[in-house]
Amino acid sequence: MPSHAEGKGSLAIVGLGPGKRDYMTARALKAIAGADYVLGHAMYLEPLAPLLAGKQVISSSMGKEVDRAQQAIDLARAHAVAIVSGGDAGVYGMASIVLEVLEHDGAEIDVEIIPGVTAANAAASRAGSPLSGDFAVISLSDLLTPLEVIEKRLDAVFSVGIPVVLYNPKSRGRPHNFSLAVEHARRHLDSGTPIAIVRNALREDEKTIIITLAEIEEHEPAIDMHTTVIIGGSESRIWRMGDDVKGIITPRGYHRKYVY
Amino acid sequence: MPSHAEGKGSLAIVGLGPGKRDYMTARALKAIAGADYVLGHAMYLEPLAPLLAGKQVISSSMGKEVDRAQQAIDLARAHAVAIVSGGDAGVYGMASIVLEVLEHDGAEIDVEIIPGVTAANAAASRAGSPLSGDFAVISLSDLLTPLEVIEKRLDAVFSVGIPVVLYNPKSRGRPHNFSLAVEHARRHLDSGTPIAIVRNALREDEKTIIITLAEIEEHEPAIDMHTTVIIGGSESRIWRMGDDVKGIITPRGYHRKYVY
Repeated sequence: MPSHAEGKGSLAIVGLGPGKRDYMTARALKAIAGADYVLGHAMYLEPLAPLLAGKQVISSSMGKEVDRAQQAIDLARAHAVAIVSGGDAGVYGMASIVLEVLEHDGAEIDVEIIPGVTAANAAASRAGSPLSGDFAVISLSDLLTPLEVIEKRLDAVFSVGIPVVLYNPKSRGRPHNFSLAVEHARRHLDSGTPIAIVRNALREDEKTIIITLAEIEEHEPAIDMHTTVIIGGSESRIWRMGDDVKGIITPRGYHRKYVY
Repeated sequence: MPSHAEGKGSLAIVGLGPGKRDYMTARALKAIAGADYVLGHAMYLEPLAPLLAGKQVISSSMGKEVDRAQQAIDLARAHAVAIVSGGDAGVYGMASIVLEVLEHDGAEIDVEIIPGVTAANAAASRAGSPLSGDFAVISLSDLLTPLEVIEKRLDAVFSVGIPVVLYNPKSRGRPHNFSLAVEHARRHLDSGTPIAIVRNALREDEKTIIITLAEIEEHEPAIDMHTTVIIGGSESRIWRMGDDVKGIITPRGYHRKYVY
């Protein structure tokens, strides 16, 4: 009888990108097509439904990441397994917890991490070019990171004027962290600093709002857990075409070298 | 006679991802397939050759970004145009300069920015899960950003212990910026902090080296302009399977909540 420890299985940790299949990579599609088992949060599996016929699908709810990682590893001893994350699996996704559990478990299985378009880049593409140069990505969720650590990070990145992408800007469980982040931003940035609130980037019901730091309070109700917020840096500005506000531009600095 | 200003053209600013077509999105492939003109740096156009039959291809060299942006806009008044960048076009890519020139030019054309897998995520996927949570992206190129600004940013992001992705870590024109970055890292991070040097992520001749901050000098020759360097944060550690070094894990913090 073949042992499960023989390593005939495989485990793909797959970043699905922002939502629609159009924004998945061919490699991600191929990993799912080749999988016997596909595991993930129901929200991410639903748009994949047409790809999942004939496969074992194990969908779980948020907050069960450790169990899901262990289950994926157990199955991957003998089967082709894909475990999926929205965006890039390596950014607030399943990659780290799967690798942590795998290291502890010691299973000898082939692991491939397949990168995807993370929410920072998806949201930015709907808001002009706010992240043209250096930037930081900070999550406002204090579920796994203490709030005082998050605040120190916010203060540091705002202090040097780089654009900051806020993941998990708000949820019912922590409605106040966003206001804290805004306080830190105001300590360092001009009130005219542009902000993009991007909801459901590259999905159905997408909505992008471009405002300034001075106007953020009145737009706070638009921010929820499906939203990515980009706070521009000290060089970012509103991008206009005629009178229309189109997005944010963070110039790369070509204007310091060329006339155009 | 139809005027070029009638806006029948279109302009797609396309992120190609890390290299191989497998890591492009379907949307990016479609934009290129639908283009009459494709513009970009020769290095990025070469892997696309099979897609470019029958199209006008305008390849240019590094350093001509403003001219290339203007040319793309001029053509897009009457044609379907795709201008390509490696990785994500919004991150050290063509998006910002195209939008800046477009704003100045005033051409009324449809513009779409198509996001891609940026080098941070591509490189991270080859090195375990070093960017699992908050992180910063900093370029060491001082061509368009003054070196003292870069140094301040490095100091700020290292000081709060988040992983830092270094783009353009070294080139013949600025061989010393990397050593400066390491100095800033050492001011704040333990000598055991893991570092990934990822060359040609997800391309031919890919190579990944996992070391610690203490060992960086002996590995500096491996760093060049095709390399992305990820310096782990205060919580990052080497990922081992048995005695093998497999990569870097930056734990998300589940260990503070669960036993596994």
